[in-house]
Amino acid sequence: MATGLKSAVLGATGYSGLELTRILLRHPRLEKPVLLLRGGENGAGATDLADVFPELSGNGGYPLHSLSWSALQQQGVRLLFLATPHEASRALVPEALAHGLRVIDLSGAWRLKQAQHRAIYDFQDSDSATATDVTEKAVYGLPELNGGRIASAELVANPGCYPTAALLALLPLARGGLIDETREVVIDAASGVTGAGRTLKRDLLFGEVAEDFRAYAAGNEHRHLPELKAALAREGGFTGDLVFTPHLLPVKRGILETIHVPLARVIDRATAEGIYDTVYANEPCVAVLHGAMPSLKDVVYRNRVAIGVAVVANVRRPRLTVIAAIDNLVKGAAGQAIQNMNVMLGLPETAGLTC
Amino acid sequence: MATGLKSAVLGATGYSGLELTRILLRHPRLEKPVLLLRGGENGAGATDLADVFPELSGNGGYPLHSLSWSALQQQGVRLLFLATPHEASRALVPEALAHGLRVIDLSGAWRLKQAQHRAIYDFQDSDSATATDVTEKAVYGLPELNGGRIASAELVANPGCYPTAALLALLPLARGGLIDETREVVIDAASGVTGAGRTLKRDLLFGEVAEDFRAYAAGNEHRHLPELKAALAREGGFTGDLVFTPHLLPVKRGILETIHVPLARVIDRATAEGIYDTVYANEPCVAVLHGAMPSLKDVVYRNRVAIGVAVVANVRRPRLTVIAAIDNLVKGAAGQAIQNMNVMLGLPETAGLTC
Amino acid sequence: MATGLKSAVLGATGYSGLELTRILLRHPRLEKPVLLLRGGENGAGATDLADVFPELSGNGGYPLHSLSWSALQQQGVRLLFLATPHEASRALVPEALAHGLRVIDLSGAWRLKQAQHRAIYDFQDSDSATATDVTEKAVYGLPELNGGRIASAELVANPGCYPTAALLALLPLARGGLIDETREVVIDAASGVTGAGRTLKRDLLFGEVAEDFRAYAAGNEHRHLPELKAALAREGGFTGDLVFTPHLLPVKRGILETIHVPLARVIDRATAEGIYDTVYANEPCVAVLHGAMPSLKDVVYRNRVAIGVAVVANVRRPRLTVIAAIDNLVKGAAGQAIQNMNVMLGLPETAGLTC
Amino acid sequence: MATGLKSAVLGATGYSGLELTRILLRHPRLEKPVLLLRGGENGAGATDLADVFPELSGNGGYPLHSLSWSALQQQGVRLLFLATPHEASRALVPEALAHGLRVIDLSGAWRLKQAQHRAIYDFQDSDSATATDVTEKAVYGLPELNGGRIASAELVANPGCYPTAALLALLPLARGGLIDETREVVIDAASGVTGAGRTLKRDLLFGEVAEDFRAYAAGNEHRHLPELKAALAREGGFTGDLVFTPHLLPVKRGILETIHVPLARVIDRATAEGIYDTVYANEPCVAVLHGAMPSLKDVVYRNRVAIGVAVVANVRRPRLTVIAAIDNLVKGAAGQAIQNMNVMLGLPETAGLTC
Repeated sequence: MATGLKSAVLGATGYSGLELTRILLRHPRLEKPVLLLRGGENGAGATDLADVFPELSGNGGYPLHSLSWSALQQQGVRLLFLATPHEASRALVPEALAHGLRVIDLSGAWRLKQAQHRAIYDFQDSDSATATDVTEKAVYGLPELNGGRIASAELVANPGCYPTAALLALLPLARGGLIDETREVVIDAASGVTGAGRTLKRDLLFGEVAEDFRAYAAGNEHRHLPELKAALAREGGFTGDLVFTPHLLPVKRGILETIHVPLARVIDRATAEGIYDTVYANEPCVAVLHGAMPSLKDVVYRNRVAIGVAVVANVRRPRLTVIAAIDNLVKGAAGQAIQNMNVMLGLPETAGLTC
Repeated sequence: MATGLKSAVLGATGYSGLELTRILLRHPRLEKPVLLLRGGENGAGATDLADVFPELSGNGGYPLHSLSWSALQQQGVRLLFLATPHEASRALVPEALAHGLRVIDLSGAWRLKQAQHRAIYDFQDSDSATATDVTEKAVYGLPELNGGRIASAELVANPGCYPTAALLALLPLARGGLIDETREVVIDAASGVTGAGRTLKRDLLFGEVAEDFRAYAAGNEHRHLPELKAALAREGGFTGDLVFTPHLLPVKRGILETIHVPLARVIDRATAEGIYDTVYANEPCVAVLHGAMPSLKDVVYRNRVAIGVAVVANVRRPRLTVIAAIDNLVKGAAGQAIQNMNVMLGLPETAGLTC
Repeated sequence: MATGLKSAVLGATGYSGLELTRILLRHPRLEKPVLLLRGGENGAGATDLADVFPELSGNGGYPLHSLSWSALQQQGVRLLFLATPHEASRALVPEALAHGLRVIDLSGAWRLKQAQHRAIYDFQDSDSATATDVTEKAVYGLPELNGGRIASAELVANPGCYPTAALLALLPLARGGLIDETREVVIDAASGVTGAGRTLKRDLLFGEVAEDFRAYAAGNEHRHLPELKAALAREGGFTGDLVFTPHLLPVKRGILETIHVPLARVIDRATAEGIYDTVYANEPCVAVLHGAMPSLKDVVYRNRVAIGVAVVANVRRPRLTVIAAIDNLVKGAAGQAIQNMNVMLGLPETAGLTC
Repeated sequence: MATGLKSAVLGATGYSGLELTRILLRHPRLEKPVLLLRGGENGAGATDLADVFPELSGNGGYPLHSLSWSALQQQGVRLLFLATPHEASRALVPEALAHGLRVIDLSGAWRLKQAQHRAIYDFQDSDSATATDVTEKAVYGLPELNGGRIASAELVANPGCYPTAALLALLPLARGGLIDETREVVIDAASGVTGAGRTLKRDLLFGEVAEDFRAYAAGNEHRHLPELKAALAREGGFTGDLVFTPHLLPVKRGILETIHVPLARVIDRATAEGIYDTVYANEPCVAVLHGAMPSLKDVVYRNRVAIGVAVVANVRRPRLTVIAAIDNLVKGAAGQAIQNMNVMLGLPETAGLTC
């Protein structure tokens, strides 16, 4: 059934990379991907992905190869997924493009324009000609938003998990001019631990996370905020203030964002739901709930955002509470990367995905 | 060591009642409490609390008695704790007071004034002379706030779990005139499942709650909101709008509230922390964090609220994010009831409690 | 891609039935199944499966129909899945067979021979001619074991979750005459809560199960033991004693069985692994680990058993510890039912399944 | 109320050491303990225990001091708790004894006789005169077993968590000659993650442990087995074989051991329970259940073992299943250390403890 399309994954030894690999392996239109070893901490010394994730063993081999541009060319690889830290992606993407590969980068390396990057990620190359050139090529990979540009992209910057949910929830309202920009939009987001990756940090031990719940980066300190603000301004014309506070949940997967929207005018719930229904009428990966709010179990293990709304009672000025949920590893990372790939390759948008 | 003070607990077969019983049993100044059976679903047919909670077995008897006012008088019981649904408390409190008992009621039955109750709880007796009389006697049992009135109270209405954390976080700011009331205060609260009691609901099954997270009563529909607004107005002079959204966490215990406060003027973090330090200088059950935010593990199994603050960056108008955490069963219910009892009996405020 | 094969599911409102429905909906060779409502507690009043499982909403309709044999015939349904309590299956299977349907029954109603059933399930009809007739038709649906008989079966009795894992671990050793039957085989099994179904029991509340672990039915009191012993004797010639103790884990899915096998002679680990390698050489749903032991994460969300072995050191007589893991809802229930269906319909054994 | 008894804790930055510190801080008869910093990974750079465990902050200071024998003597410290890795305890105990301190060591450094240690822990000093001398002084600290020798001990070797539960369950049967030593005793034990300490291992990340369950050290490879066998032989005269398999549970605290005992003769459940009742009649930290089995929630946060028994049905030769549960950090470590301390100091055995 495969059409001979061949891809490679660099960074399969992290949670997002593993999820990506799993989806690629059962994708009906692709060959088995080439798995590349980055040499970082997760897979040090491993020669097969099952050395890193024993749950893969007993199911055939998943050999890990060192990255070699010429070997990739010989193997006929045309598309490269990077599930690497942003510093690594920053260094690798220009090389990959130069070798004629199309790239889907899951990191934050190419999501922002130069000036924003300078403030947030402190890349040394921010003013180089190459960086400027690659930045201009990068297409922000939210297929519900700009599928047309993704189709022909050489480089797709896969969105961050938190911005994915927030943008899908806020853009229809922003585009409709419904948000009162004189009052702040407040977003409280809660994520499962795989959102933090497979890093060895004491804060991520089971003994610390189980039965706990806490905020982090409170006070607008999270790196996803500039990405979110830039996309809201660029795609929705929104220039108001945001307050974004992420929290760590004692679950493995899933992000739920409770988004408090001051409204420019009174609308009722059916009207609000109708706005989403209209915008997402042809989007297979968006579930608009009616008279209900999403929970994590609506979305985990699926490439789906679920959105619900409530009109806020007992306040003087109109407000809406919008709740959006995704699986951080799927619609928030690997699944969205596959969705982008499908668009780039002209395949059905949900091929290989469960929405 | 016991001074002969004797209490009774009605409703020990629920989570709050069990927690209350456990604290009373190791309280250094009280005799073993009389445990009363309400006859509701949890303890149907039980004659000993260990029939309901097998974890108590092997440690001696916890006999359950039917409620009898004359038996309580004969046993020398002077203080009655009600860990009962609010309808039951509504019916029982007038009787208990008439029999000369002092009462600490953990339900919502007597927390609000008549008119508010009519809207929220729909009590049939709301306009009766007795209800009016008892309502006037009821003292809202937040010891950090009005310890003086609690000391002489006949009836203490123990606060709800959500309002406890929110009031301890907001009142110092409200009293200081620091909240900009033209913008809404947004509170996202997350609670462990014991906050919902030990009721048999499908939504509370492990198979539904584990690995999940969801909001409920979004849109200002939760019953604790009127209690919170009334207390903020009464004690802090705050008349602005609130947006309160509770969430259900996959943990057993603990409430964390992320409270977004629009400020009337710019203040820095040290100043904000200093306000709390001053207000709570002599309060043994309040922990003000400096440069850190609380998490559930800071507070579970303790009669303590932990409060942290962050100034919000990158917004045009000044804002503070305040996070408050409590154990819903301890400072949010049973522990606070004991703290109130200690104040009523002239004992050290933290006797029998771990703060 | 669908070939027009049409199935129906009775009992989709439980955990196993939901899992079954999900797999059928994405099965490449079947039409959308007809979902039948049983009228029991889980789905009372529901007209769409999304009324029961809100996570399905936003994804199109899942209408629930009342059971009508004539309607099923008109719709061209040829295969009926029963995810019903065993009493219901006991009553329905003879009717379904009489209406020409092939049946895969996930309950325990037809797994045992008459006499055994009398002792365990206390069916009123145990001696009736119909019951005897249907019992004779029933094929025990462990495809790795007796695929040939399943292919032509009218009625497949889908095995219990605990016996599935134990049989796949023990039968290769029993058939090889490797078990010392003078010493007992001891099995400690631990299951996630979905194994207990979606029943409203206080013992299954999150507040009771989280952070807990306990045995149940200790002392060989579990109903799966006779099923396991019967299959071990029938298929493996094993007539020794078993000690089977199930435990309840604070996880949603998965069964892990630690099986202590007294050996008739000394064998080393490689030999033991080789026995499993040989027996399961062509079985796509069995993963034999080498030098490793399975954990739940090796198997959840897959139709797979993972098996590992260790030779026991420091004991006088030879022993092996074999550990087998499955997902109780997949290989232990719905996935195995689909695997059986594939065999019955002549489809590839793993069609629609992730092994 | 304190009598001036002063203790010190080395290793308070691990889970057991923190639990120990918490209990000491609320112990009615001891002064606040001196907290000593070992300089290992957990507390590197910390000067206060609240730097390591933020949940302590807001509650006053917990200064950490470098270890100095002369400073301890000047402060009047008479008793030293070591919550250190066994290599560290091995080096420190001889020095501490030489400085006149009594020591309670929570590690495995002094639990075994020389020859056994050589095989298991590979200590370099195993044949030195000092090691021999200290080994002879070490008393195995199971107070229910040998309280008399503990009272006068200079050095108490606090038992391992797994052996504590197993010994309290097995010794009454072994001493009564009830175990059939020709058949193996099989123990499947499951522990919460704090049993593995606060080490940074990928296997202990929340993302790996949550929703998982697995065995480790299968095949009698766990280091606690020689400790258990030695104590069973020494104190119970038991010389049969054991099969011990530990498992990792997705919970924070608690050990449950399912112990399969082949019996030398038939006994019924009441008789078996009666044996435990008699042996533990005066033991405040042992709960013998009647007609019930313990679960983790019976014992967590308490210094208690709970024991239940079931007679195994449907086997040819008599067998008992005994289940024992403890909190690994309390009765399995810190609480038992306090219990030993109470015995050493002539205090009530349960002072400062909740049993």
